[in-house]
Amino acid sequence: MRAIDYAGILKHQPIFSQFTDAECEELSAYCTPRNLVKNEHLFQQGEAATGFYIVVHGRIKLALQAPRGAEKVVEIVTDGGSFGEAAMFIGKPYPVLAQALCESLVIFVRREFVVARIASDPQFARNMLCLLSHQLHGLIADVESYSLKSATERIAAFVLKESARRSSDQIVLALSKCVLASRLSITPETLSRTLHQMSSRGLVEVDGPRIRILDRPQLHDMLQPG
Amino acid sequence: MRAIDYAGILKHQPIFSQFTDAECEELSAYCTPRNLVKNEHLFQQGEAATGFYIVVHGRIKLALQAPRGAEKVVEIVTDGGSFGEAAMFIGKPYPVLAQALCESLVIFVRREFVVARIASDPQFARNMLCLLSHQLHGLIADVESYSLKSATERIAAFVLKESARRSSDQIVLALSKCVLASRLSITPETLSRTLHQMSSRGLVEVDGPRIRILDRPQLHDMLQPG
Repeated sequence: MRAIDYAGILKHQPIFSQFTDAECEELSAYCTPRNLVKNEHLFQQGEAATGFYIVVHGRIKLALQAPRGAEKVVEIVTDGGSFGEAAMFIGKPYPVLAQALCESLVIFVRREFVVARIASDPQFARNMLCLLSHQLHGLIADVESYSLKSATERIAAFVLKESARRSSDQIVLALSKCVLASRLSITPETLSRTLHQMSSRGLVEVDGPRIRILDRPQLHDMLQPG
Repeated sequence: MRAIDYAGILKHQPIFSQFTDAECEELSAYCTPRNLVKNEHLFQQGEAATGFYIVVHGRIKLALQAPRGAEKVVEIVTDGGSFGEAAMFIGKPYPVLAQALCESLVIFVRREFVVARIASDPQFARNMLCLLSHQLHGLIADVESYSLKSATERIAAFVLKESARRSSDQIVLALSKCVLASRLSITPETLSRTLHQMSSRGLVEVDGPRIRILDRPQLHDMLQPG
């Protein structure tokens, strides 16, 4: 791992994009890289938060644990994303567990650096405020989805969002159906049945993990309130 | 309204507690008070966010609107609480509506003040980061409750939290059963039925809007994972 150019990697993370090379060099002293294999846990729900994590590449699942092994997937963080900031700021344990869904590289950034930088760099403080604000709005959108949207609406929204992210009509599910269903707060059976219905109606074509959008306007109509 | 001492009121809000009298005086130029009668709307979902709100006294319901008049109550903000910060920071519309549940006084704080203050006062920036972090953890706790807790567990948690807040074994529901049920993501019928069952089991005594805790250890046991 030591051969890797951390300063170069850090500079390409959105939260540090305004850092100079020298600042990234300085920051790297507060960072610890961590390679994870598929299914490896990064931390458990309730562990002390002494910093936050940036995903350089891979997919990290954040989930809540229920008794008897059940869990609710709260978020899937991918390249350039970060997590753990809120727990770090308020000095509380992580409220979720973090587990790699595939081979991943994450960087841990120690709290000391963040606190010192906020004291000296108002732009960094504003970036952090924007980051937390986006996370908060993302969670409110999830609460809206769980509370007020049907399974079909949730799946249509997911397919359109993934399609926009990839700029393609075809998406390839990088998540198992169980993980995706938990993320959308539906059962795996409902996910399969609803995808089958959407396919029968000519909205999408489903081929294993591949979903192709056939009728984009009608998928969009499903998201309209009213 | 003009007779009210805003600087004095502002000084007593947690987010401004470290401000001097002179700073509160200066801040008040960026503030607008607003008196609301019961059921009055402060803003609708989707309105532009040019600042955030502090509740001086009263109860403000934040809710998501669904088609055909349904809604999901996301939060009830009471004295000293605030809302709208995330939308203000990222320049997005408010994702929820805000409505007074009783006669309330709120103060609107303009974005310009917050942005300028963050640039000059790292402690204020950290306070804002902590505020957003607490809101984020509150929402994750809600997602956990909606996803993984039974109606009985949600009601037990609510009763214990209210009891702790009032330091009393007796709580008086200041919310209608419809609003409380929506806040807990259960139906009003489930709320009534579950309270009745908890009462039959000798856990609580219910008398109209008054709930008295009779068996605190057993209520606590309901919250234990396992």
